[in-house]
Amino acid sequence: MTVKQLSLPELADACRELGVRNVGLWREPVQRYGVEAAAKLMRDAGLTVTTLCRGGFLTAIDPVERAEALGDNHAAIDEAATLGTDTLVLVSGGLPFDSRDLHGARERIADALAILGPYAAERGVRLAIEPLHPMYASDRCVVSTLTQALDIAERFPAEQVGVTVDTYHIWWDDQAPRQIARAGAAGRIHTFQLADWTTPLPEGVLNGRGQIGDGAIDMREWKGYVEAAGYTGPIEVELFNEALWARDGREVLAETAERFAEHAA
Amino acid sequence: MTVKQLSLPELADACRELGVRNVGLWREPVQRYGVEAAAKLMRDAGLTVTTLCRGGFLTAIDPVERAEALGDNHAAIDEAATLGTDTLVLVSGGLPFDSRDLHGARERIADALAILGPYAAERGVRLAIEPLHPMYASDRCVVSTLTQALDIAERFPAEQVGVTVDTYHIWWDDQAPRQIARAGAAGRIHTFQLADWTTPLPEGVLNGRGQIGDGAIDMREWKGYVEAAGYTGPIEVELFNEALWARDGREVLAETAERFAEHAA
Repeated sequence: MTVKQLSLPELADACRELGVRNVGLWREPVQRYGVEAAAKLMRDAGLTVTTLCRGGFLTAIDPVERAEALGDNHAAIDEAATLGTDTLVLVSGGLPFDSRDLHGARERIADALAILGPYAAERGVRLAIEPLHPMYASDRCVVSTLTQALDIAERFPAEQVGVTVDTYHIWWDDQAPRQIARAGAAGRIHTFQLADWTTPLPEGVLNGRGQIGDGAIDMREWKGYVEAAGYTGPIEVELFNEALWARDGREVLAETAERFAEHAA
Repeated sequence: MTVKQLSLPELADACRELGVRNVGLWREPVQRYGVEAAAKLMRDAGLTVTTLCRGGFLTAIDPVERAEALGDNHAAIDEAATLGTDTLVLVSGGLPFDSRDLHGARERIADALAILGPYAAERGVRLAIEPLHPMYASDRCVVSTLTQALDIAERFPAEQVGVTVDTYHIWWDDQAPRQIARAGAAGRIHTFQLADWTTPLPEGVLNGRGQIGDGAIDMREWKGYVEAAGYTGPIEVELFNEALWARDGREVLAETAERFAEHAA
């Protein structure tokens, strides 16, 4: 998503040129290209797919919507398995229309995971609940903190359900370092993502994630927490940013690699 | 602030017409009108000033900026005393330029409160730390949760420092109900404010607070928490909303009173 202006072949090519060997993918471009074809493209380029984004949106009350969401998540798990990644990131979903019941929505996520977790594990895929910043609580994700994500994840085996640790969503939370330790001790840090916090936030607050180093977040501090918690997996940089998307994708990828080296390596 | 299009005399008049007997004021219009004159105006209208907004911005590292901030807060305390309110709401401040140290910023707030708390208490004014939604953590307020606010407030006597409970800032937080109980047990709920959560958020995320009943927050649920915690004080409605400000102020005030009756009374 950081360089969504690149097609998948352009992305693979740019990664190869830069020496980037791991890549996190999103479902939409993979589906457009064809899942099998995308898997082959990445394999042939020597790229490992770190995660697939995203499953989730599991908070519907309506039975038909709920069945559709489960079906879509089964498909996402299959796609992850085809791509050869062991991790499907979940954006859990917001409040249904006219509902004000956060607790109920969180329980419906857990209910869905009881179905999806075993299905995923059978295919070698782990589900990674991503707590999203509280500013998304009503419309995208009722799971707003690592504490909440782990409270749900711990109802299931770690090889079924863990968490996504993304600096953008948790950097403000003084309880997050302890929760990272909790997650790491149980083998539940399924991926670690970086984005920086910059203001002013844009309208809708979706596409204002800052380039590494441009904002308020101390990347090395958070990397230190996940490493101290035993995490040795890849580190993803996931930026949604209109200004970055408007630039040349290869240039943004190169800049991102430089920023990573400067602020997180 | 909900009806900032009204002058203070218009506000006093509209409150009298509607039978509203309590009003929370902001410093800027009070200063423009004159603090003594505003106090008299409210008194003559039979209005009690519930709180004054706002002190705070106590996170500066630079000694000159820091001294200026303390001076401004001393002035705010004096203004609160003159208006006859017992509560000054604090918006604590964001990260200083180029700093990524949230913990240090929070400690500087506590350092400042050690100076301001006794000064306020001597004048019959309590300081009310307002945790602001985490989306303001970098640029307005590094205190993002009731837990953090209470961790700071509890270093001081309750008659010096307590908290502001505002639904807009804490509605997403499943730990907030327990923290309201913690605050109430210690006599530290110094004010209770309502605003609703609506999306999409506007650019800058400052002026998108929803009218009561328009959004995702169950007002009665939160009122129930503060009442169960022993709070018997006034309930303020504080909306920053461009659409509401563009309308006739008396009409908005009447609508707000109706919404309050419908969703919170």
